Amino acid sequence: MIRVGIIGATGYTGAELVRLLIGHPRVTITWATSRQFAGTRFDRVYPALAGLTDLVCEAYDPDEAARRADLIFTALPHQKAMEYIPDLVARGLKVVDLSADFRFADPDAYAAAYEPHRAPELARSAVYGLAEIYAEAIAAATLVGNPGCYPTSVLLPLVPLLNTGWIALDGMIADAKSGVSGAGRSPSLGVHFCEVNESFKAYKVATHRHAPEMAQILSRESGRPIQLTFVPHLVPMSRGMQTTIYTALTAAVTADRIRDRFAAVYGEKPFIRICPDGTVPDTRHVRGTNYCDIGFVIDRDNHRLILLSAIDNLVKGAAGQAIQNMNLMMGFAETDGLQIIPGAM
Amino acid sequence: MIRVGIIGATGYTGAELVRLLIGHPRVTITWATSRQFAGTRFDRVYPALAGLTDLVCEAYDPDEAARRADLIFTALPHQKAMEYIPDLVARGLKVVDLSADFRFADPDAYAAAYEPHRAPELARSAVYGLAEIYAEAIAAATLVGNPGCYPTSVLLPLVPLLNTGWIALDGMIADAKSGVSGAGRSPSLGVHFCEVNESFKAYKVATHRHAPEMAQILSRESGRPIQLTFVPHLVPMSRGMQTTIYTALTAAVTADRIRDRFAAVYGEKPFIRICPDGTVPDTRHVRGTNYCDIGFVIDRDNHRLILLSAIDNLVKGAAGQAIQNMNLMMGFAETDGLQIIPGAM
Amino acid sequence: MIRVGIIGATGYTGAELVRLLIGHPRVTITWATSRQFAGTRFDRVYPALAGLTDLVCEAYDPDEAARRADLIFTALPHQKAMEYIPDLVARGLKVVDLSADFRFADPDAYAAAYEPHRAPELARSAVYGLAEIYAEAIAAATLVGNPGCYPTSVLLPLVPLLNTGWIALDGMIADAKSGVSGAGRSPSLGVHFCEVNESFKAYKVATHRHAPEMAQILSRESGRPIQLTFVPHLVPMSRGMQTTIYTALTAAVTADRIRDRFAAVYGEKPFIRICPDGTVPDTRHVRGTNYCDIGFVIDRDNHRLILLSAIDNLVKGAAGQAIQNMNLMMGFAETDGLQIIPGAM
Amino acid sequence: MIRVGIIGATGYTGAELVRLLIGHPRVTITWATSRQFAGTRFDRVYPALAGLTDLVCEAYDPDEAARRADLIFTALPHQKAMEYIPDLVARGLKVVDLSADFRFADPDAYAAAYEPHRAPELARSAVYGLAEIYAEAIAAATLVGNPGCYPTSVLLPLVPLLNTGWIALDGMIADAKSGVSGAGRSPSLGVHFCEVNESFKAYKVATHRHAPEMAQILSRESGRPIQLTFVPHLVPMSRGMQTTIYTALTAAVTADRIRDRFAAVYGEKPFIRICPDGTVPDTRHVRGTNYCDIGFVIDRDNHRLILLSAIDNLVKGAAGQAIQNMNLMMGFAETDGLQIIPGAM
Repeated sequence: MIRVGIIGATGYTGAELVRLLIGHPRVTITWATSRQFAGTRFDRVYPALAGLTDLVCEAYDPDEAARRADLIFTALPHQKAMEYIPDLVARGLKVVDLSADFRFADPDAYAAAYEPHRAPELARSAVYGLAEIYAEAIAAATLVGNPGCYPTSVLLPLVPLLNTGWIALDGMIADAKSGVSGAGRSPSLGVHFCEVNESFKAYKVATHRHAPEMAQILSRESGRPIQLTFVPHLVPMSRGMQTTIYTALTAAVTADRIRDRFAAVYGEKPFIRICPDGTVPDTRHVRGTNYCDIGFVIDRDNHRLILLSAIDNLVKGAAGQAIQNMNLMMGFAETDGLQIIPGAM
Repeated sequence: MIRVGIIGATGYTGAELVRLLIGHPRVTITWATSRQFAGTRFDRVYPALAGLTDLVCEAYDPDEAARRADLIFTALPHQKAMEYIPDLVARGLKVVDLSADFRFADPDAYAAAYEPHRAPELARSAVYGLAEIYAEAIAAATLVGNPGCYPTSVLLPLVPLLNTGWIALDGMIADAKSGVSGAGRSPSLGVHFCEVNESFKAYKVATHRHAPEMAQILSRESGRPIQLTFVPHLVPMSRGMQTTIYTALTAAVTADRIRDRFAAVYGEKPFIRICPDGTVPDTRHVRGTNYCDIGFVIDRDNHRLILLSAIDNLVKGAAGQAIQNMNLMMGFAETDGLQIIPGAM
Repeated sequence: MIRVGIIGATGYTGAELVRLLIGHPRVTITWATSRQFAGTRFDRVYPALAGLTDLVCEAYDPDEAARRADLIFTALPHQKAMEYIPDLVARGLKVVDLSADFRFADPDAYAAAYEPHRAPELARSAVYGLAEIYAEAIAAATLVGNPGCYPTSVLLPLVPLLNTGWIALDGMIADAKSGVSGAGRSPSLGVHFCEVNESFKAYKVATHRHAPEMAQILSRESGRPIQLTFVPHLVPMSRGMQTTIYTALTAAVTADRIRDRFAAVYGEKPFIRICPDGTVPDTRHVRGTNYCDIGFVIDRDNHRLILLSAIDNLVKGAAGQAIQNMNLMMGFAETDGLQIIPGAM
Repeated sequence: MIRVGIIGATGYTGAELVRLLIGHPRVTITWATSRQFAGTRFDRVYPALAGLTDLVCEAYDPDEAARRADLIFTALPHQKAMEYIPDLVARGLKVVDLSADFRFADPDAYAAAYEPHRAPELARSAVYGLAEIYAEAIAAATLVGNPGCYPTSVLLPLVPLLNTGWIALDGMIADAKSGVSGAGRSPSLGVHFCEVNESFKAYKVATHRHAPEMAQILSRESGRPIQLTFVPHLVPMSRGMQTTIYTALTAAVTADRIRDRFAAVYGEKPFIRICPDGTVPDTRHVRGTNYCDIGFVIDRDNHRLILLSAIDNLVKGAAGQAIQNMNLMMGFAETDGLQIIPGAM
């Protein structure tokens, strides 16, 4: 059993880490921090976990981190993560960071999308934790920057096709739709039940900070600068993210060849499921799990390949992929703690 | 007071016609048919209307139609509408048809998207009821083919920009999202609460029959053949439709000029609202009303103009626009019966 | 046209007043205050109302109230209302107060449920605005204390039966369920979409402050002290309140006699609808309207009469009844501004 | 590994059995029947399970049942279950029946609530599968009648208190609220998304067939005939059941003594959780799990004890308890296959 700590355990992402790690066969949560709930039993903050954990939230203390944990998950706001993590790494801890702070290899790219980076060296050495693509580097990493939920939903369907010559690398569009938990647990008008229920709307149209994160990886994988149009929308549901990606076909590729390509890249990957012909991904089918379901449709009339993906934004889009990264870093089976079987609803 | 009849009154679209017409100052519903509920009081089928109408559903009978009504709304499945309407028109009735049967001026285009047309002459003479664009022709029409919900949500933002030279007419994409009432009232697994709730998914990807309907009008208005990629999605909400349209910019147009263009075309139109800068349409803001809210964002980095619209699929997308068409046909004020004030939720 | 002002216009109750009053034929909203949004156009706070009002929120100022309005709606937190209202009344304004402050004729009863009353004389002279029961007193009132949503849903079905001798006055139970808008617009964890969605729970079990308000009226109407067990629950929906009331039968009364009793009391009342035999009230049927739908079932095996009611908590449970009270106070038709026709959904 | 079969595997209850049994460490599903989907892969009916099972639905055949399974779950409509089960039992199979057919020890009681029983002898010998109460008898049983969802939610909080002398056994009321999945997967208007969403209503008021099932057990456990008033309601959510039970206090019992009583009865029971003081059960906290959360409030003013429970209607209310019963029958750990950790949502 390894000992893990969670910094920022009482947000939705932190709580999802707790849910999944309680069921992990090779891990014990030994330490969990919460500024707001220090001193409070975790199951009083999340009564759903009554009887399942005796964890008590604590204040942040790097000495405690080093003394009580082997690996740390940081579920903090960006800028805050970069404040804590250098110290943790210096103390010999492995870290999976769920903020945006260590997702950009280029601190200038980070600065352009967010704010100036205060640990640029560490950012350069961190590994981007897109687990199906960078498994080898992740296995050797000390610090993993866990991908954003939207980038995960865009990159997993796109990356295998980038170098096939089948699609144009310019002019791609990702139209994404997220459940409300992606906005976090902090109360605000935007997540008020009555503002979200019976409502559907776009937000941060073509200005969301996850777009440069996608662009970074698309460019890295294709070997030339790529940017794309990205528009997120808010769906009246708690969990789930569905993304529809529009690309221009540049070759007369068949569905079979696309299917073969996905099989070649993802055939052994336990969390990628390619939808059978004639079906499309549905967020309901991945609810609570680490799956990324991928479908595609060839729109011959318009010379387009349309890719569709569905993930649970809190699992494959956050806590689940973080644990998958931990599994890779620790040499565990990739599926340890993540074998959640989805229900019909 | 004119006398109106509704054929197919107990589906959701029919019921929405009843709701709105009860409040119409110049109209009385004198006749309503329902195959399933003939002989039953309407308010037993829709208890929400108890105390508001004494209407009793009847079986279809063209003699009754002619005897008791001046104008007929047909809310029937396609193919069924074309069976009844020629007879009604022959008897001198005005008709607003909410099916797809009289939306295509070209019966071959209809046949390609649906099935062969059995009243092609009448189809050629019917007027497409996109009220803000074809008001004049509608005013003179005997038979109006009321637009589909998706085409309404796509055409209203797009048509004013087609001939500006600002956007490329090829390669447009409409990513649309609809509430469940668009699927009608008939029970099926696809509208089961547990299949829709906490679910988001695409359907009929690039194969939906509303795409050729859009293409017809876009081509007519631009004077050259246009087709577009259209992908509808299902949202876990009852009412509402939001569409995000991606076009390529071909000129360095400013937001102000776009705003001016919309003002020039829609400035006097009571049901079109252009969202203030920095805001986007939300289905919640048009719930229950005949509004079409339109927003736009210039994505300079990717040389795109992104258009966004929100309507209530049952009102502006069906019954409301049908009544607006009736108002135009009868010379009533365009807003008669449609002055619904939306709530905060 | 009379001139009305709304103090606290940007909460959900205030916004509902605005929605309904915009459509009122004999009223103009001349003044609306909001601490948070003073200086902001109302339709920027509520974009749903774009094009429907030019109202700009202002800071509170009693001189303005007196100068610009004939009647004031106060939609303020309790304790705050009693701070403003005496001054408004002294200036000759009529007031409908939507807080709890003027619902209790006995300031000690108010103090026991809330806090000490700082305008006890005025409280004694205020009229309880249960419009169907106290229409005459309301018509003569200067200050009306608008009933709470839960009391409205409990009292309207119960009051007509209190003095029939058919039901025991002791031991009554009201099990009530409310949509989320009843909690108001202020963000808090309790109204976060993810905390409410796929959740059903009781709250303030047998301790809710609306219970003494119900008890006051039940006691007044029956002529002897009555208290009841009241348990509210939160439903994952925006609008609506359904209450199931359990009473013990003390006589072998028939359904017909109960139905006759309701007809005798409510036969002429436009907003009370008694459900046909074999049907029960559904919040969906009254959504957005001022109706109170009432049903009942005789549970012979257990010698009980079960009463069921459904209202829209924001309309009949708040803003709608407040306008109904204004109509009575001003001698308008009771239904002015309240003739909203409910949709199928 | 034991081999289990599921008859009626493609309804919601059957699918929930499949979900849970896939994760069960001591069981393999070897056979699953579906009239509607015979010949179809299970994961085509439930795409959520893609990659998790190779099960193919088959037609019912008792020879296959006997040949391929050691224990059978029947998830059939009532009356249908009693048609199949005698044969299965005769062939030496153990059976857990999820219909109502074997819940009544007295065939006449069954006949009064449902229809005449066609296997009355077997009904008399079946064991009622309320796992926390009848564990011993279940362990020895060949045929278990799995409790209804509503009875489970009512009996678990009530049974421990029946013989304490603290509450009146007459006049109890259970006001229950269920998510929509309780109505099953068959499409009907009543489960149409648009009919349920933004709707709350009672149904089968004081006439639901689960009431006599509750009465049977309450009478058995208390040693004298008990009946109660039972009113179910439908909640716009997929999963979950919350019940509020009203009993009259007959003694001045303290909260501590009640808490002690629950601890004495349920202290060792892994699926019963008693809510801490000041908190109440929430369906969200048990979603997807086999927990029954129980809370209580003493309403001193009205001399009542109010009990509250929350379960997932498909798990503790159906498939989960069925597996718990199987575990008891087979001598497995009671929690095998049921250690689902609930998420925050």
